[in-house]
Amino acid sequence: MAVQLELAVNLFMYGVALLAGLLVAEVSKRIRQSEIIGQILVGIILGPYVLGILRPNEIFEFISMLGMLTLLFIAGLETDVGVIIRSGKAAAILAVGGAVLTIIMTLPIAYLFTGSFAIAFYVGVALCATSIGITVRVFADFERLKSDEAQLIIVAAVLDDLLSVILLGLVIDLATAGTLTVQRVFKILSLTGAFFAAVLVFGVFFTKYIAPKVWMLRSRGAMLVFCFSLALLVSFIAAYVGLSPIVGAYFAGVILAETEIRNSVLTDVSPIAVVTVPIFLINIGMKISFVSPGKAVLMGVLFSVIAVLSKFLGGILTGMVQKQDKNSSYILGIGMVPRGEVLLIFADLGLTLHVIDNTWYTALVLVALVTTFLTPIFLKNLLLRGGKEDEQSNKNNIEGNSGKS
Amino acid sequence: MAVQLELAVNLFMYGVALLAGLLVAEVSKRIRQSEIIGQILVGIILGPYVLGILRPNEIFEFISMLGMLTLLFIAGLETDVGVIIRSGKAAAILAVGGAVLTIIMTLPIAYLFTGSFAIAFYVGVALCATSIGITVRVFADFERLKSDEAQLIIVAAVLDDLLSVILLGLVIDLATAGTLTVQRVFKILSLTGAFFAAVLVFGVFFTKYIAPKVWMLRSRGAMLVFCFSLALLVSFIAAYVGLSPIVGAYFAGVILAETEIRNSVLTDVSPIAVVTVPIFLINIGMKISFVSPGKAVLMGVLFSVIAVLSKFLGGILTGMVQKQDKNSSYILGIGMVPRGEVLLIFADLGLTLHVIDNTWYTALVLVALVTTFLTPIFLKNLLLRGGKEDEQSNKNNIEGNSGKS
Repeated sequence: MAVQLELAVNLFMYGVALLAGLLVAEVSKRIRQSEIIGQILVGIILGPYVLGILRPNEIFEFISMLGMLTLLFIAGLETDVGVIIRSGKAAAILAVGGAVLTIIMTLPIAYLFTGSFAIAFYVGVALCATSIGITVRVFADFERLKSDEAQLIIVAAVLDDLLSVILLGLVIDLATAGTLTVQRVFKILSLTGAFFAAVLVFGVFFTKYIAPKVWMLRSRGAMLVFCFSLALLVSFIAAYVGLSPIVGAYFAGVILAETEIRNSVLTDVSPIAVVTVPIFLINIGMKISFVSPGKAVLMGVLFSVIAVLSKFLGGILTGMVQKQDKNSSYILGIGMVPRGEVLLIFADLGLTLHVIDNTWYTALVLVALVTTFLTPIFLKNLLLRGGKEDEQSNKNNIEGNSGKS
Repeated sequence: MAVQLELAVNLFMYGVALLAGLLVAEVSKRIRQSEIIGQILVGIILGPYVLGILRPNEIFEFISMLGMLTLLFIAGLETDVGVIIRSGKAAAILAVGGAVLTIIMTLPIAYLFTGSFAIAFYVGVALCATSIGITVRVFADFERLKSDEAQLIIVAAVLDDLLSVILLGLVIDLATAGTLTVQRVFKILSLTGAFFAAVLVFGVFFTKYIAPKVWMLRSRGAMLVFCFSLALLVSFIAAYVGLSPIVGAYFAGVILAETEIRNSVLTDVSPIAVVTVPIFLINIGMKISFVSPGKAVLMGVLFSVIAVLSKFLGGILTGMVQKQDKNSSYILGIGMVPRGEVLLIFADLGLTLHVIDNTWYTALVLVALVTTFLTPIFLKNLLLRGGKEDEQSNKNNIEGNSGKS
């Protein structure tokens, strides 16, 4: 049954990964640690470079992507659009501040290594994009997904992703063609603009006219099927216009968050999250290779430091402007640190287009892994230190400030 | 974002398929038809041979397989082991009767077409295996999954699958090597024997010692993750020893059906079924091609008639031996008709191993499709005619007869 067995190997990988992830989650729960690091470790240990029980393939990648999308979809469902609007200014400072600092700090050092301004710029822009999957996961772990910090970070990461995708389109042109055409700049800007306009229009239309009808569907699980396919399709559209698909999943959640079916969808989608999200984490671990040359490791460590520092300073900057307490500023800064799968996608793209070489690729992957590893550790401590009281005072701060602006 | 877009196309296909499936399900519900034919039609229309919006790929195949497994897992969870034991004799008659009739009726006609006894025998055995996915889906539609007919058909299909897999291993040896070695016969028999012994031992062990502990897990969705990975792993083991993975999923469900967590698992697994089962049906439709030569179509129609007749006569035979009413006999016979994915796997295997040629392959695929199409239509009418009253009297019949044996 060779044909059958090929597909069946994926069942084995999926089953073993879930079971190992469950074991680690149970241990983590008992020693009061986040299961994120444990599940990434499961990926490393079972992955191709240690035990070799799991190996990356298209199907595992897809389940992992579904996990990521479900996570962001839930984050969207938990979103309070009022808070987003109120925190718009703070989010913009957090996103743009962190991104500008990242590019400024990366450019000279990357230029020293490569001697090419185009490559240095590419690396700088690649390092901007925040991968909120990990951060959201930590907040969800502490049941703080609805906290203002979490909301602010998600909004900022969306802006951030948008910003880096726009810049990336431009910087690819710069690195490959040597010049930037006005047409290309126009195309990129209009596509992303069209996406957000479309989401806005569709969101209002949906809430008013479609959502009440979804209640009336009679077939089995109709509401879940409808909402889940909405999430998939908006994710696809986001990817199609050049954004990360997780931006789409998040906005699909936001659209549904304003309807009365929100709570039912949250309940129904949870079993799907439970069997896909661990795969997202394990898949990240699986990709860590221990065979990298010295230069790549040196560059990886160096740019990891830059990546952490720049976003952390961005958080402090935001805290200063918004007059927030120190702990909240730290949370904002650290929450923006992970580069995770977004940077991995960008590194992949750069390699495919011959913009960066193998050493840069390894270095960028290392940055993604280091930032992914460090974030939960730092963020966990900050969240334990913060607690409910801070969250409350912080909420008043943001709202107070936004009111004035 | 070429790299990203490649994965994202699967999001599009998945989302569109679910949405179209939902639309058809809603229409079917309103016109009181089973959604099965509708969703297969969606597969044909959106598939590569008509609109070309969906095209088969590894990921779609995997989601479809998860749907099939979840369906059989639920069927297992709904199983009453007491009924299985009581209906063992009837199921054996149904399975062996149908299989023997299929081989007897296929052999001479297949021999006429091919002139090779080995190929004719291969085709006969390939046509034995019942693909219960479709049948179970119809019973589930009418909320008759717990009826004795459904239980009997599932048990018979499992026996059937077992029988055809044992014979297929032998017939492949016959067709490729020209002879059968004692070693090969021994290996096939011992592997399948070991699987069922292992399932039995593990089942008893699990119910007594592991299941009570699963209650005590604390992490998010732990019970679902545990049970779902159990289903995946038992499915893999089934595929590994050469059985169909759906046999494994079914037995994983049966093992859990005897525990007190059964109802919670049924509730939790339902959202997963809802977003995967439509893909199983649509995927079947997607594979229907309208470009097949005349000979293949002639053979396909001819062997479809044989496939329907042989299993239908098997049902009547069982009804006669078990002294059941006519409607129940018809339900049993028709319920065993679909060859679906099991025959597709066997056709694929035969082509890969050069046991059968392209014409035979197309003919066998046609039989799988025709039987899959016809079963819901006939079965639906029989189930509507039967109703609750018959089911009750039939239940008494089976139990009464089994008690005597």
